[in-house]
Amino acid sequence: MAVKNYSITLSSQGQGDSHDITPLVQERLNESELQSGTCTVFTPSSTSALTTIEFESGALADLQRMFNEIAEQSRHYEHNARWGDGNGHSHVRAALLGPSLSIPFIARKLTLGTWQQIVFIDFDNRPRQRELVVQIIGE
Amino acid sequence: MAVKNYSITLSSQGQGDSHDITPLVQERLNESELQSGTCTVFTPSSTSALTTIEFESGALADLQRMFNEIAEQSRHYEHNARWGDGNGHSHVRAALLGPSLSIPFIARKLTLGTWQQIVFIDFDNRPRQRELVVQIIGE
Amino acid sequence: MAVKNYSITLSSQGQGDSHDITPLVQERLNESELQSGTCTVFTPSSTSALTTIEFESGALADLQRMFNEIAEQSRHYEHNARWGDGNGHSHVRAALLGPSLSIPFIARKLTLGTWQQIVFIDFDNRPRQRELVVQIIGE
Repeated sequence: MAVKNYSITLSSQGQGDSHDITPLVQERLNESELQSGTCTVFTPSSTSALTTIEFESGALADLQRMFNEIAEQSRHYEHNARWGDGNGHSHVRAALLGPSLSIPFIARKLTLGTWQQIVFIDFDNRPRQRELVVQIIGE
Repeated sequence: MAVKNYSITLSSQGQGDSHDITPLVQERLNESELQSGTCTVFTPSSTSALTTIEFESGALADLQRMFNEIAEQSRHYEHNARWGDGNGHSHVRAALLGPSLSIPFIARKLTLGTWQQIVFIDFDNRPRQRELVVQIIGE
Repeated sequence: MAVKNYSITLSSQGQGDSHDITPLVQERLNESELQSGTCTVFTPSSTSALTTIEFESGALADLQRMFNEIAEQSRHYEHNARWGDGNGHSHVRAALLGPSLSIPFIARKLTLGTWQQIVFIDFDNRPRQRELVVQIIGE
């Protein structure tokens, strides 16, 4: 059993900008040389989040519309009133979707479905440089 | 420390069909013979999800109503416009709820609350055969 | 590699009462003497949940407003009709946000962002005594 730590660096446009990081996570898994265990992907940020989805423009737009409706950007946010940075909606969306994802791997392969990809969504209201944590525990 | 991999196969009706998989997960935990560690349950699908809930028909119906309201099936979905499979709402709901659940176990018992069960929800718009991953890491 | 189990006990007011448990989790991590691994925080309850957020009153109020809108307390809930305990909204909110959080740590430090804290939210409709599980697996 071992713990292996990796990172993924990416440039994001914010405003729901979505990245399919599946190949990048699988790459780190290959490098780890572990066969079986759990891969935890974590975004060290309060305005971005992780989940899985069928990574195609339709489903991504539909998910974005839902967030636009339940946490519309143009509304009043207490966060904005206090800090003036205009990303109150980003905090609400990111907290709801969550910062971490745990994916089992078997025979050095993530156990994702055929139409299921790991998506990183940046909800911030401006471009950001992001560094995600990929931690692999297994044997 | 060891990694043990199991699966759970189930037939689902879709449209929010909910299954209490707690006894099935505990069964695999017993089989693992591990005492303490983390159990990760994962659905390899982009139209189903996992969480915990008090598994009784009232709470299940209330949760379903919330999804019906924030991602109503009958609306326009970009996913449906592109692929014609009519499950755009399923993708949005599943991405929001999330595909994985990590539950600590101690003394070979899941640390769930008395009124808390592991629920698998199939949001797809048709019956599906599902195979979930149950991965147990511990000692 | 080892598994270390800890708990966090706290008194909550319910109704969205939010607690920054980051220092309490880091304390347990220090005690574990492990360097690198995954920390799983779990609430053994179906009316409370965990996520990360910038822990300041504005963002907390904005998140609360979103829950007030998508699962308003004063509406009809099937759970309340069956059980009469008035916390139907609590179950919906808790199931949506989720009971567990997996956070990698490296060099005995949680890999959280600068403005990102671990928040426990109690959605129940009355004060509760809570005992969370903190499980640390690593080396």
